[in-house]
Amino acid sequence: MNPHTIFADIVAGRAPVSTVYEDDDVLAFMDIRPFTPGHLLVIPKVQAASLAELDPAVGGKLFQVGQRLAAALRQSEVACDGVNFFLADGVAAGQEVFHVHLHVIPRTSGDGFGLRGRPTSPRRPDLDYLAGSIKGALSRN
Amino acid sequence: MNPHTIFADIVAGRAPVSTVYEDDDVLAFMDIRPFTPGHLLVIPKVQAASLAELDPAVGGKLFQVGQRLAAALRQSEVACDGVNFFLADGVAAGQEVFHVHLHVIPRTSGDGFGLRGRPTSPRRPDLDYLAGSIKGALSRN
Repeated sequence: MNPHTIFADIVAGRAPVSTVYEDDDVLAFMDIRPFTPGHLLVIPKVQAASLAELDPAVGGKLFQVGQRLAAALRQSEVACDGVNFFLADGVAAGQEVFHVHLHVIPRTSGDGFGLRGRPTSPRRPDLDYLAGSIKGALSRN
Repeated sequence: MNPHTIFADIVAGRAPVSTVYEDDDVLAFMDIRPFTPGHLLVIPKVQAASLAELDPAVGGKLFQVGQRLAAALRQSEVACDGVNFFLADGVAAGQEVFHVHLHVIPRTSGDGFGLRGRPTSPRRPDLDYLAGSIKGALSRN
């Protein structure tokens, strides 16, 4: 896969961007296709196509910057009564740009944004079975 | 608001749970209303109703545990070709349990889960204006 993405151009200063936050590791800027006004993206400056490629130290910073942005959005001129974080890892999850990005989405009642899907109610033994399988995989990593 | 939640009972060992991961700060377990099989929740052990109440050090750990779970899900018996992270902060964002929780949702093509909403394409000056307002709020925090 070609590792080049629009976010690499943004980090390098080669593409237009409306930046809201920057430090040595992380950049946050306005999504140009916002679900709601004020929709932000938080990205690592280093190239990391997926969560598996991302240094966990930098992953933790993405969340921490997201926390700061969630507070700032509420105190800005953006209409914001709540905030969603969203991240897509892999094509099957809807990832389109292969550079890790955390969406920080300001919310207001009735804004039309949300999740699509039907939750189910599995029995406890079925939950326990999958939990055991996931624990096993964790222990092998 | 009553600060008591089902997640406090889970942390205290007073409610049934299918745990997949636990350390001093973080607990991860099966969501009992999964959008897809293997849907997990990652929570801080300390009570924190919102992102604003959550120690950023613990917030960073939620993301890092999410990264480990995303890898483990792919290596487990759960059907998982991709992963979404989702978090709701505030009633307007769809938060229902007032103890911070990061959803880690395994994805496969055609599983029916996703986002609902219509992205827009604002002009750059409008993005720059909101970015300026958010930067201003960040600088006051």
